[in-house]
Amino acid sequence: MSIRNELRQDRITKTWVVIAPGRGERPHDTNDEPDVTHNTSHCPFCPGHEAETPAEVFRLNDSNGGWRVRVVPNKFEVLGGDRGESRTVSPQGFVSMPGVGRHEVVIEMPEHGADLATVDVQAVRDVLTAYRTRFRALRDENWALIVIFRNHGSAAGTSLSHPHSQIVATPVVPIQIRHRFDIARQYFDDTGACLYLDVLEREIAGGRRIILEQAQYVAFQPFASAVPFETWIMPRVHRTSFGDASDQELVDLALVLRTVLGGLRRALADPSYNYVIESAPIGDEDRQYFVWHLRILPRLTTPAGFELGSGIRVNPSRPEETAEILRRAIDSEAEVARKISV
Amino acid sequence: MSIRNELRQDRITKTWVVIAPGRGERPHDTNDEPDVTHNTSHCPFCPGHEAETPAEVFRLNDSNGGWRVRVVPNKFEVLGGDRGESRTVSPQGFVSMPGVGRHEVVIEMPEHGADLATVDVQAVRDVLTAYRTRFRALRDENWALIVIFRNHGSAAGTSLSHPHSQIVATPVVPIQIRHRFDIARQYFDDTGACLYLDVLEREIAGGRRIILEQAQYVAFQPFASAVPFETWIMPRVHRTSFGDASDQELVDLALVLRTVLGGLRRALADPSYNYVIESAPIGDEDRQYFVWHLRILPRLTTPAGFELGSGIRVNPSRPEETAEILRRAIDSEAEVARKISV
Repeated sequence: MSIRNELRQDRITKTWVVIAPGRGERPHDTNDEPDVTHNTSHCPFCPGHEAETPAEVFRLNDSNGGWRVRVVPNKFEVLGGDRGESRTVSPQGFVSMPGVGRHEVVIEMPEHGADLATVDVQAVRDVLTAYRTRFRALRDENWALIVIFRNHGSAAGTSLSHPHSQIVATPVVPIQIRHRFDIARQYFDDTGACLYLDVLEREIAGGRRIILEQAQYVAFQPFASAVPFETWIMPRVHRTSFGDASDQELVDLALVLRTVLGGLRRALADPSYNYVIESAPIGDEDRQYFVWHLRILPRLTTPAGFELGSGIRVNPSRPEETAEILRRAIDSEAEVARKISV
Repeated sequence: MSIRNELRQDRITKTWVVIAPGRGERPHDTNDEPDVTHNTSHCPFCPGHEAETPAEVFRLNDSNGGWRVRVVPNKFEVLGGDRGESRTVSPQGFVSMPGVGRHEVVIEMPEHGADLATVDVQAVRDVLTAYRTRFRALRDENWALIVIFRNHGSAAGTSLSHPHSQIVATPVVPIQIRHRFDIARQYFDDTGACLYLDVLEREIAGGRRIILEQAQYVAFQPFASAVPFETWIMPRVHRTSFGDASDQELVDLALVLRTVLGGLRRALADPSYNYVIESAPIGDEDRQYFVWHLRILPRLTTPAGFELGSGIRVNPSRPEETAEILRRAIDSEAEVARKISV
């Protein structure tokens, strides 16, 4: 990157914005067609093009000398470069700092046209192993927040269709995260309980929005889902950091994630979606009042002026009904799988 | 509306979500083509189709027995119905309330294919007059927050292309607005100054992001613009409520708004955008630390997983550079106008 990105603080909302002029130059191969396999010869994430990416920071090998998963720094990084320089205040009082941090790409599999929703569960586990390894490495570098996310489909902001996720490490804790923690801390102080486990327990007791319950994880659509088919996957027990997930937990998570993504793909004909792993900021991993979770947000609706001006989201569907649809899609897929295996 | 919408509170973020199953049935005529005049015979907002909308709550007549602006209740309302019923807590502790409020459509002009960015400034003033009249009426009904907004273009969530704005009155103050006020109040307590006028003064002192300065209003692109070409129009003096704008202020605002929208249209080839008038909640109109403003957010980029997970926006352009582009587009339009008038 020749141009250094900049973090600027909005004094009115205290949110941070990354001013990233280099991001406009990203290669784009997505279009509205679901599959762009005709572009594989130019895809920097396909096997044979390894030299086109920055040097690997993680890799899982296959048994034939190739790779199953690669993690590389993002060539068009949102945040990059080492910490050290501090914030500056302009003569007019505006606060900014260099856009330091990390931005990595998890190239999830060699197959350009494959999808996390349909691959073998072992391949999903490989991706989660890559997430956890890099999460731990970035935590050791002492960044403030580590955001793991996946953009699937052009409506979700994907710029390359080869299956990939991304990891960004930020040098500041965003105010949105602080607000969420403040609410949970207040609840803990008032009740002695963890708000997240409390909400999960109540969702389980209600039952209508539960997608699946498993030994380690529960998938559900929240009571106040912001978008149609919003789905959370959450540990059943107290875990503040995704980085602390055990091997067995990753095995279970892979199965749940693969099942939910498969169901969404089936129910909604391969929708665009974002998912985000929301984990505690690095300094807050010992708190008793937060549980990490994976939040899937299908991009079926467009937030407009009312949402932007009020922060109130308008969801045109009831999560009780979309949960029923998703459960059926998962059941029918399991049915198909059973028939095939017979 | 046969189906009653519902407001649900997210216990984890304290945000409200409107569950609005009826919204899925809206008529849609927008597509990616900039002009859909072929659909005018079916447009419920065109002259001759007045009976297809709910009864008018406001109208400005023209001199030929027709109308210049109409305001009608939105047939596919986000919020509607009178206050009275209170919040309910489910056996599982989830908080909801009926989706009461108001939702109105400002049909800005009779011409289906016209645009607020290119019409005569008098037509813009008519629209602002309609906004203010309805703002005051809804304020008298004692709703919590009145949000006036405009969605232009399909990327901005428009469902009908006939020029229109919308007004929503909510029964609750959203937490996003509370957070903004908390920051401004803290600043006022610390410094005795209004954060909004302070920021404006500093933007004027810096000068590089100013679009235009006029007796009553300043248009500028904020230091920490969340999206490319984000542009604010703000009174130069203390005004907490849009509803208190004087006639002369509306005349001036119409000119500034028309100029900025015209410049954006010219600079960006008629971009999709949302604008929102951010005015104080009804109970907070006497505060000394807030100034209402009109915020224009072009929809040129797609927020993705990182933004959703962190609340940090990534803006691929520097507001100093986009302000220069917008100023030039405005100057060249003024140049054209001068030539035509010669």
